[in-house]
Order: sequence, then structure tokens, then C-alpha cells
Amino acid sequence: MQTKAYAAKGPTTPLGPHTIERREPGPKDVAIEILYCGVCHSDLHTARSEWPGTKYPCVPGHEIVGRVTAVGGQVDRFKAGDLVGVGCMVDSCRTCASCEEGLEQYCDGPVGFTGTYNGPLGAPENTHGGYSAAITVDEHFVLKITHAEKDLAAAAPLLCAGITTWSPLRHWGAGPGKKVGIVGIGGLGHMGVKLAHALGAHTVAFTTSPAKVADAKALGADEVVVSKDAEQMAKHAGSFDLIVNTVAAPHDLDAFTALLKRDGTMTLVGAPSTPHPSPAVFNLVFKRRAIAGSLIGGIPETQEMLDFCAKHGITSDVEMIAMQDIEKAYERMLKSDVKYRFVIDMESLK
Amino acid sequence: MQTKAYAAKGPTTPLGPHTIERREPGPKDVAIEILYCGVCHSDLHTARSEWPGTKYPCVPGHEIVGRVTAVGGQVDRFKAGDLVGVGCMVDSCRTCASCEEGLEQYCDGPVGFTGTYNGPLGAPENTHGGYSAAITVDEHFVLKITHAEKDLAAAAPLLCAGITTWSPLRHWGAGPGKKVGIVGIGGLGHMGVKLAHALGAHTVAFTTSPAKVADAKALGADEVVVSKDAEQMAKHAGSFDLIVNTVAAPHDLDAFTALLKRDGTMTLVGAPSTPHPSPAVFNLVFKRRAIAGSLIGGIPETQEMLDFCAKHGITSDVEMIAMQDIEKAYERMLKSDVKYRFVIDMESLK
Repeated sequence: MQTKAYAAKGPTTPLGPHTIERREPGPKDVAIEILYCGVCHSDLHTARSEWPGTKYPCVPGHEIVGRVTAVGGQVDRFKAGDLVGVGCMVDSCRTCASCEEGLEQYCDGPVGFTGTYNGPLGAPENTHGGYSAAITVDEHFVLKITHAEKDLAAAAPLLCAGITTWSPLRHWGAGPGKKVGIVGIGGLGHMGVKLAHALGAHTVAFTTSPAKVADAKALGADEVVVSKDAEQMAKHAGSFDLIVNTVAAPHDLDAFTALLKRDGTMTLVGAPSTPHPSPAVFNLVFKRRAIAGSLIGGIPETQEMLDFCAKHGITSDVEMIAMQDIEKAYERMLKSDVKYRFVIDMESLK
Repeated sequence: MQTKAYAAKGPTTPLGPHTIERREPGPKDVAIEILYCGVCHSDLHTARSEWPGTKYPCVPGHEIVGRVTAVGGQVDRFKAGDLVGVGCMVDSCRTCASCEEGLEQYCDGPVGFTGTYNGPLGAPENTHGGYSAAITVDEHFVLKITHAEKDLAAAAPLLCAGITTWSPLRHWGAGPGKKVGIVGIGGLGHMGVKLAHALGAHTVAFTTSPAKVADAKALGADEVVVSKDAEQMAKHAGSFDLIVNTVAAPHDLDAFTALLKRDGTMTLVGAPSTPHPSPAVFNLVFKRRAIAGSLIGGIPETQEMLDFCAKHGITSDVEMIAMQDIEKAYERMLKSDVKYRFVIDMESLK
């Protein structure tokens, strides 16, 4: 099926119109008309070959919301007309221990999970993502969307920014009686604040920018700390059960590990392109603290998060753009000039 | 009570004979004749002011085994003649959450726990440790020793080297069905190998030295990996539940985090004087791995470890020295020229 898309043809070529081939749905496939696609930093890193391994043409996009147009003969969870989502993965080995536990993002198979875009296919081209009019995906990797129609566009970023913060919050037990920090108030961080608050944790947002204090409170933070203010930071020493650190730029991790309680964990969900300053081991040893990492989330927990968000009326704060404005959006994203996620209206691609 | 001891009078002065004052036992105190005292790297760091805060004169030693000579009127767990041990702590606030949980090493009180030596007393001198003929300690911080008399000297290092590896092994669930790595085969590491093996874990020792392979197997390692051999290391990628890293010298942590399974933890029990190279965040993110720290152990778990070791016939491998040989022992320790712990026979101080 010939499908309109926006692609990068090379690392320094602006994204532009392109036509890709989508497969006819096989027995277990779901064919989806894409309505909205969120814009993630990973899109830009991949399109511009800032991470290794990009194959061109490259069609980014892994925060996909759409409507089912057709399903294969063995698909029973979806039917034409259903509202659905596709996140960062479209396949995995399905047989390793991680896949069997519903943690496909940690697939131990020979190639790990297959990314929604730039994932290896063994074909001349890698997988193509959501900057396109349609996509065909195995039903295992298709999520049900139960948000109200008016909230569909704002639900798209839940598929990456939402699950990337939800998964560590749930894994490390964010909830009532727990004090949880979210470092960085951007695409990921603003979802982290909303989700930690909705899960019932005492939620503290950390930002380097005094200008973001009011915004972070509006998102649901019980407290906001300007992390450059040593005095404000010191008041929270040794008090956090969990800190989810969404900042990928290299920064001083010790300032945050010092805020963890005994047995507290700081989870990094962003990987810096150059290393963070080496974290102080004394900070870990003296209260049995940990620095961990977490990667997106599995399919069952993504569905759990979407259902939770629909029930609690949670979406991302988004700014809508046309597909043609993607390069402008990238430039603004690089300056953190978005509150808090761009979403492409795929109507613009028609 | 005037008591013979060996003290450093300054950071560059060799340790030598000195007389200290030990208190008469108060109602809850236990007075102990010291029979043996292990020699820990911390002794040297403190005696030579390699860590901040040393007050002189300084009497090191926190791997103490001895015999009770008198007890206070309210002491009911010990009586004169009992064999007992004293480890790294002689006091703590006793009221914080950590103390109430028996994790006195993480005491959240105003000064944390009081170290057996160089711990703050509010007096002109700090606490004095086990390089002495006797010590008086609150019964809360006195451990029962049930090892056979012939094993007493070799049991002394359990009070620091033993508990420092036991605590993380227990906390992170080392046991049957788990694959556990011990990095570094020195004072701490050789105990880690013995304890992990005795706990039933599949125990893998890591050493930079091919010459230590046979020794590590003799200690109980199921496998020994020469960590400088990339090919040997690669065979263990993604396979460990837990790695206890005893090496305090700065080194490449990534080589070990890459060996952890999903949700695996590497626990650092040594803090380097200059930072490790900054660990790769991708290694943590891609399998939800963690780098944590752990500090000695609490009093209840120290007793648990001592009882376990007595039952299983576990002691340290030790080399006995006279008190007068301490500076020579320090020099050999700095060259890792000891299998695996020096223990001072306090008879030599008489």
C-alpha cells in the first residue's frame, strides 16, 4: 500500500514528502490510519544520525494515535473503527523471559525489540514510523485508546513520554506515602509530574529555571525546587524514595543522589551524549542508594498507563503542528521552546 | 582504666606504644580483653589522614575479638568469660528509623553512628579502636562469637570484611538459583566469595590477576574470570543477578554492569579516592540495571553472619602478626601482599 510520509533522506537533509510502502495486513496485523503523531527528541537524534545506525530514507515518529481501517483474520482484539495507539516498538522475539513477562523493551532476543522506526527488518529499508498517513502493526504491539475523541491528539505523547516515566514510577513503587522527585520539566518530565501526582505520591519537581516554578505547580507538583539553589536543595537532603531524572544533558548527579533516603533510587531515563560527571560513590555507600536506568515500558504496562490516564483525564500538554512545520518544531524543541510536546496533525499530510 | 595501645600521633608518624583511658563499665557496658584485631585498609587511611577528620592520637582497629572481663548491672546478654566481637560501630542514636530497623550503620541521627575508632565523643580525643589491650562497649554493639577457640583469630575479620560483603549479599538476595559476582580477591573479596558460595549462589570471582585463579577457586568460586580478558568477560554478558564490587581503586565499571541481567545490581562496597570513570548510562537504561552502594552492616545482621559462619565453619584466611609489626603489615597491604587479612595477636602488646 503506497503511503504518504515525511522522511529524512540523509543526516543533513531537512525532512520532506516521501512515499513509503506499508504491508497489507497479515492474519495478525492491524492496519491503522494515523491521526496524530507526537514529536520526540529521539526522532531528531535518529533523523540527523546523532545516534549510530540510521538507515535512510528515515521516517520518524513513535507516539502514534490512529483509527483501525482493517484487521487480519486472526485478530480478535481490534476491529475497523477502533481508536488505537502505537508506541516505540512494533515487534520483539516474543519468547525470551522479558517478552514473556510483558517487558518487550528489554527483549533478550538476537536483535532486541524492533523499533517503530529505524528498526531492523532485514530489508533494504528499516521500519518507518508515524510521520505517515498509515501503518500496519502486529496486534500484540497495538494499544487500545479509550480517551475521549477531543483528547486524542494530546494522548499521543503518552505512547513514549508517558510510558517512559510511568514504567519507573510503577516499578519503584510511586504512590501514597512516597516522596517522588521528577528532574526536568520537559516532554518527559511534565508527564512524570502528572503521573506521579495522580498515583498519589508527594511529587516534587526539579527545574533549573525559576520561570518554570508556576508551570510545574500547575502540572500537579506538590513542591517545586530550583535545582541551582543549593539552599532549596539542602532542605530535601535524604528525603526521597525515588527520583526520576529525565534530563539527558550531562549534569551533576550527586546533587540529586544526596536527596535520596536510605535505599532510595534515582532512575535515569535519558542517556547523555557525553558522560555525566562521575557520580560520588560515597553518596551511594552511605545510605545504600542506587542509580538505575529505565527504558520506555512494556506493552501490558503501556495499556495499563493509557487506561489509567483515560480514567483520570490525563493527557500531555501539547502544541499542534502541521507535518510541513516539522523542521521548525525541531529547532524550537532544541531550545526547549515547547510546552511540552509537539503533536503533528496528520490531516496536514493529505 | 589505663590500657596499653598502639597509636599514630600524627599523619606521618609510625604507630607506636601509647596508653589510653578506657571507661569503667557503666550499667549497660561490657568490658572486653582484646585477644585479636584484624587489620583493615580503613585503619591505614585513618591513621595517615588519607580521609578527612582524623584526631590524634589515633588508635585504629575495628575487627575485634576478645573475652568479657566484666559487665554492668543491667547487662543480661553477656557475662565474664564470654567470647565476643566488636565491629565498626560502638554507638548510634538508637531512635531513628534505621536504628530501629537494626541498620545502625545508616543511622540518621545528628552524627550518624559512632565509629569504633576516630568516632566523635565530644571529648578531646575521639574513640580508640582495637589496637589495644581492652575496650569497653555498650552491650548493644557487642556480638556473640560462637566459633571454636582455635578459629578465634581468623574470625576477627568477619567483623568488618565479613559483614561488608554479607550485608549486600543478603540484601540483594544471593542464594540458590542466583548468579553472583565478586570483583576483587582481597580482604573483602575473599570473604565475599566464601559467603556467596556458602549461601548457595553460583559464585563467580573476578580478578585482574591470572595468578589468583586457583586461589579464588580454592576459596569457593564456581568460576573465576580474569577481568582484563575481554573474551572471558563477554561470555558472561547479561547473566548476573548481583555483582558485589570490592575494588576501591578507580576502574571501568561498564565492563561489569554489562554482565548484569535485566534488573541486576552492582553494589560498590569500596569508595575510590579519585572517581571511577563515569559509568555508561546506556548500560543501565537498556536492562533496568542499577549501581548501588552498601556500607558494612547492622548489628542484627552482623550477629546473623557470625552465627552462619560459625555453623558453616567459615573464617577469614589470615596471617598473624605482632602489634610491633603493624607498619610492615601496612606496607605489604598496600602491595596486596597478604592472603588475605592480617590479624594482630594482642598477646604481643603485653
